[in-house]
Amino acid sequence: MRFVAIRDSIGPLCIGIDPSTDVLERWGLSDSAEGALELGLAVVSAAAERVGIVKPQVAFFERFGSAGFAALETVIGVARSEKLAVIADAKRGDVGTTMRAYATAWLASGPLQSDAMTVSPYQGLEALEPACELADESGATVFVLCATSNPDARAVQSATVGKRSLPSTIAAFARGRSSGSCSVGLVVGATRPLVESGLSIDDIEGTLLLAPGFGAQGARLGDITALFGAASRTVIPSVSRSVLESGPTGIGTAIDEHRRELGL
Amino acid sequence: MRFVAIRDSIGPLCIGIDPSTDVLERWGLSDSAEGALELGLAVVSAAAERVGIVKPQVAFFERFGSAGFAALETVIGVARSEKLAVIADAKRGDVGTTMRAYATAWLASGPLQSDAMTVSPYQGLEALEPACELADESGATVFVLCATSNPDARAVQSATVGKRSLPSTIAAFARGRSSGSCSVGLVVGATRPLVESGLSIDDIEGTLLLAPGFGAQGARLGDITALFGAASRTVIPSVSRSVLESGPTGIGTAIDEHRRELGL
Repeated sequence: MRFVAIRDSIGPLCIGIDPSTDVLERWGLSDSAEGALELGLAVVSAAAERVGIVKPQVAFFERFGSAGFAALETVIGVARSEKLAVIADAKRGDVGTTMRAYATAWLASGPLQSDAMTVSPYQGLEALEPACELADESGATVFVLCATSNPDARAVQSATVGKRSLPSTIAAFARGRSSGSCSVGLVVGATRPLVESGLSIDDIEGTLLLAPGFGAQGARLGDITALFGAASRTVIPSVSRSVLESGPTGIGTAIDEHRRELGL
Repeated sequence: MRFVAIRDSIGPLCIGIDPSTDVLERWGLSDSAEGALELGLAVVSAAAERVGIVKPQVAFFERFGSAGFAALETVIGVARSEKLAVIADAKRGDVGTTMRAYATAWLASGPLQSDAMTVSPYQGLEALEPACELADESGATVFVLCATSNPDARAVQSATVGKRSLPSTIAAFARGRSSGSCSVGLVVGATRPLVESGLSIDDIEGTLLLAPGFGAQGARLGDITALFGAASRTVIPSVSRSVLESGPTGIGTAIDEHRRELGL
């Protein structure tokens, strides 16, 4: 499995590519598809020497329509040619042939092909099956939103299915679906203790975990073991704002600092 | 409110634009961005004389990357120039500035600007606020996934928040957020009785309801009153497969038949 190999060689750190209006302004770039392209290529360049994984946030490209998607295609292509694994943070979710179409966009051979995508489970876990199948076929990974890092997710994610929390139900699906190829992972935010999200370490141990919330959102990379216990081994911590806000001259140093925090 | 005015003048029927592999084959079109464009324009042309609303399914364009988005931009632009209201069926969901970026893509002035978009509530209802704000500003509508029409959504959507079902909690959010401008609607599938989705008529009465599941998925347009009771008044029934599978020569007749079923 690609992400396991990267973790064991280069380390698990993932750098976000978020060409938001604020970040583009901080970098002195135009708030346009061209600006998003320039930012994306600069982050890829800084990341390529230091980490193994990048995570473009699709929304910030999508706001420029097809021109933004063309920029994103270039960024993804260059990142992969630099041997970076790409997690398309798209949070797509639908059913049947529509879900398969989203998975085709991001995981099958084509201009947006990535090594992983994030998906949303609101339309049911079985509905994600077409994406899981395509991930199996292409050796890619699907990260299912489970317990996200924003505080206002609690109302929905504190829901229960029978006696089980919704996040725990989703984690059970990932565990059941992943044996062997480990192609289904979870998005589990690092901004609060697992138990507050209705998750136990047993729920997630051995499952690949994409963990946003580090850096600007408040969690510290040094606290991964305290937060995830025995499940820490498979955590991919993702940092975005704290790195991007360092600007073009500071991004390399900022990534290096995060690597040190992780003991890399 | 645009959708209320359309319902009262032309009627509420919405035609899906789903350039899936199967549909493109049925129409004798290539499985490509060009094929998707041709299908989209043909559906818009057939819809423009007969209904007030179309709903492109973004996934089927996205699978062709930026070329697919360019096709979608053209389809949306032509549809709006033909005075059709466009519901971008994107099912986007994220938090904070990322959610705002998705809303900017689909609801703000730009190449993909539509009259409404569908969003997913998995990251919390407050997280949808940036999209609701933008909808308020631009006179657009946000349809929040609530009780979807696929049977396998039940495991997630049968979850409860306190003593309230998750769909009922979401419906309360839409009701609270919509007074006056009615800019927040719900996606409520028509394939099963409301009570099975954990919804009552009181939960949804007065809220704009995008209702897929008619035609090929099994629900009948003549049964809207039986299904939605007093909430029928604000239902936008959406048909896709049953119309698209009629092919280029049969689509007009198929739409006309559905209009008759609705008494239009």
